[in-house]
Amino acid sequence: MENFSEWFHEILEKAEITDSRYPIKGMSVWLPYGFQIRRACLNIYRDLLDSEHDEVLFPLLIPEEELAKEGIHVKGFEDEVYWVTHGGQKELNEKLAIRPTSETAMYPMFSLWVRSHIDLPIKQYQVVNTFRYETKHTRPLIRVREITTFAEAHTVHSSPEEAAEQVETGIEIYKELFDEMGIAYLISKRPVWDKFPGAEYTMAFDTIMPDGKTLQIGTVHNLGQTFAKTFEITFENKEGNHEYAYQTCYGISDRVIAAAIAAHGDEKGLILPPRIAPKQITIIPIIFKDGGEEVMAKCLEIKKSLESKGIRVQMDTRDIRPGKKFFDWELKGTPLRFELGPRDLKNNVAILGRRDTGEKIEISLEDDLPSKVEDLLMEIEENLKAKSWKAQEDKLITLESLDNVGEIVDEEKVVKFYWCGEEECGKEIEEETEVDILGINEENIKTDKICPHCGKPAKHVALMAKTY
Amino acid sequence: MENFSEWFHEILEKAEITDSRYPIKGMSVWLPYGFQIRRACLNIYRDLLDSEHDEVLFPLLIPEEELAKEGIHVKGFEDEVYWVTHGGQKELNEKLAIRPTSETAMYPMFSLWVRSHIDLPIKQYQVVNTFRYETKHTRPLIRVREITTFAEAHTVHSSPEEAAEQVETGIEIYKELFDEMGIAYLISKRPVWDKFPGAEYTMAFDTIMPDGKTLQIGTVHNLGQTFAKTFEITFENKEGNHEYAYQTCYGISDRVIAAAIAAHGDEKGLILPPRIAPKQITIIPIIFKDGGEEVMAKCLEIKKSLESKGIRVQMDTRDIRPGKKFFDWELKGTPLRFELGPRDLKNNVAILGRRDTGEKIEISLEDDLPSKVEDLLMEIEENLKAKSWKAQEDKLITLESLDNVGEIVDEEKVVKFYWCGEEECGKEIEEETEVDILGINEENIKTDKICPHCGKPAKHVALMAKTY
Repeated sequence: MENFSEWFHEILEKAEITDSRYPIKGMSVWLPYGFQIRRACLNIYRDLLDSEHDEVLFPLLIPEEELAKEGIHVKGFEDEVYWVTHGGQKELNEKLAIRPTSETAMYPMFSLWVRSHIDLPIKQYQVVNTFRYETKHTRPLIRVREITTFAEAHTVHSSPEEAAEQVETGIEIYKELFDEMGIAYLISKRPVWDKFPGAEYTMAFDTIMPDGKTLQIGTVHNLGQTFAKTFEITFENKEGNHEYAYQTCYGISDRVIAAAIAAHGDEKGLILPPRIAPKQITIIPIIFKDGGEEVMAKCLEIKKSLESKGIRVQMDTRDIRPGKKFFDWELKGTPLRFELGPRDLKNNVAILGRRDTGEKIEISLEDDLPSKVEDLLMEIEENLKAKSWKAQEDKLITLESLDNVGEIVDEEKVVKFYWCGEEECGKEIEEETEVDILGINEENIKTDKICPHCGKPAKHVALMAKTY
Repeated sequence: MENFSEWFHEILEKAEITDSRYPIKGMSVWLPYGFQIRRACLNIYRDLLDSEHDEVLFPLLIPEEELAKEGIHVKGFEDEVYWVTHGGQKELNEKLAIRPTSETAMYPMFSLWVRSHIDLPIKQYQVVNTFRYETKHTRPLIRVREITTFAEAHTVHSSPEEAAEQVETGIEIYKELFDEMGIAYLISKRPVWDKFPGAEYTMAFDTIMPDGKTLQIGTVHNLGQTFAKTFEITFENKEGNHEYAYQTCYGISDRVIAAAIAAHGDEKGLILPPRIAPKQITIIPIIFKDGGEEVMAKCLEIKKSLESKGIRVQMDTRDIRPGKKFFDWELKGTPLRFELGPRDLKNNVAILGRRDTGEKIEISLEDDLPSKVEDLLMEIEENLKAKSWKAQEDKLITLESLDNVGEIVDEEKVVKFYWCGEEECGKEIEEETEVDILGINEENIKTDKICPHCGKPAKHVALMAKTY
């Protein structure tokens, strides 16, 4: 697509994902079709989390005192927090923050719940809306003032090893999530100046958008004991001594849905991976003057047989010409189309159309149609995923020198380079090139390369990109 | 239970439903076990709504200008609205209200979406948190400042008849919802002075709590054209003329869960209807020194066979004595308990314990256990529902005179009486008796009774109660 930004804006509107005409900048409405995609994504997410986390729900509002407790953390959010100052006509005794994220809502409660090592680990998650008073240009699903789908997990452990292991678990969960949605990703350890406010270190997932800019789609933070010390989360260990707990947190947002839309869509509209498509196949009866009833009856029969196998099916019986129906469902990204006309029925055949490749496949009505459809959905899923990873591969370039990195990222590339990893050097690189260092993609590797900026021995492979 | 209020407060804490120690009054945390109950309730709700409504999601914040547009409506909420005045360190140009309900968030968008009669009807719902700055005594799930589970439906129609019909549909949906949770209810048309601000009329569901006070658990409003006129929701009708649309809205909240807890619980703790129980049966292996392995193996086998039928099963293998396990799961309200010890296994028998009746049923391990359990779960559901309706029947009393109504409601009764239905008379009754008129339970009946207050001919059966 020529202009991704424009395409993205238009597709949200035309495919009825969100409506951004809501009268507050940076806040949009989830429309019915978009909401169904969101629900399917959340189902995958919950399935992944539920096996070892408990879902909970904490209040939206946070007393100023709690928010302010963790100094580094609050500094990271102070320009972005919305404040509630009045209840009815009265001024409140204490200002209340609308959560920008939930550490300061949850951890005072963790402090009450954790007494002994037998109370640990705690692994909880919640799916909530969070708020950031963004002053930059907003963009639906990507940079918003109300993050409507903030899926945040928080864990508490009795040892630093267990917390570090949980970070790895968090990464594995997100890998699986993105894999199921066919989204390619880059994992990196964020530079110290770009980690989560209060974290020891931050692992991040970025995906490369069609315009070559990267979008952060998930983060996993090792919080160490920072918040435990601030919020007095202590436990009695096996030896009977009191110790501060070790924590992690990890989160994703609406951006995951933006990434899925961006990764797979084309000029005709959305292409939805079968796992998150509200309907996986659209049946379109081709009705002329004659033979309509038989075609409809057959289509209904097929719909039932597909549904009995758990396939999500819809039948488009609107009184409009088939071409318009094809157009609509291509726009909305339904993975498969099934066409049947009177002549097809006579010949005992039908057409299956793939949204991802545009391929039309003639099938016999004697075939085991549910199996055929299941196989095709699987193929589509694999194809979308492979295409997305191939697109990422094509956009990655390894540089020996950073002299032209600005021009190279302008050509929609994401840059890998061998780096010393030092903060001072990294900040200089960012300042001179005006390109962001995403972080360290491969840590502590053996190499005889040198850092192209400072000339010291390189220790890591790092990533640079223009970012959203 | 002797003191319901105390019992309710304790059960929420002991059964780990919510934690009300969150540092803002009237805002609580949903704990893992409570959240699972909430999730099961929402699953029932969504199943009921999805067949003819679209789920959507609108922003939390509402510009002051929109909230203020509908005069009667805003007056009903002005003392209760939380106001956001600052973003970061800056004062906002326009104050933003945190939704107390979503009419004024949704209807400006409806105005954009509705053009012609072919755009109608719209039937949407969302499940969100809403906020009321309550100055009265707060109580978890019942009177809160953050309503965490506000499930609100909004519909738009092209005729008043269709809107009136939708009110009936809304009532039917809620009947089914409460029936599935075994909650008895009274339906009444709220007095004009107690209808939803902006509505033509309000139909309400109340349940009688164990202390005889009624709790409003659902409302269905016919909005007529009030909001359509305010928010310019117009459509071109079939004759080509422009007309204001007709609207309804209906909602339930966390109170539904409070009602289920209150309706079925006893001194030992929760009794959960099988439909909303996180686990429907707890398997408790009774392990002594010998024969432990065989018992465990058999229990696991039974767990699998029950799960294969979609029954939600847990096995309590904690290393504590069985009595403590019985106590814990009675407290948490699991409908059935399965006990198996080594001697039972030798005799090929086991015990099923019903939480609702306390009954212990000896069964043969040769029986078709999944069918047996399914039947019992069904029986428990029916029994809880019947008990709840019986309890309501016992608390209802029909009065010919309102002289002692104050004393009678203090004896935990809800009063029916024949009423003229006039506003002036009703307000006088409420003032003199200090008891609320819930509304008209049977409208426009044929009767030769007279109104006990004003002496005019009675037209309706009305309800009076102390209310939450």
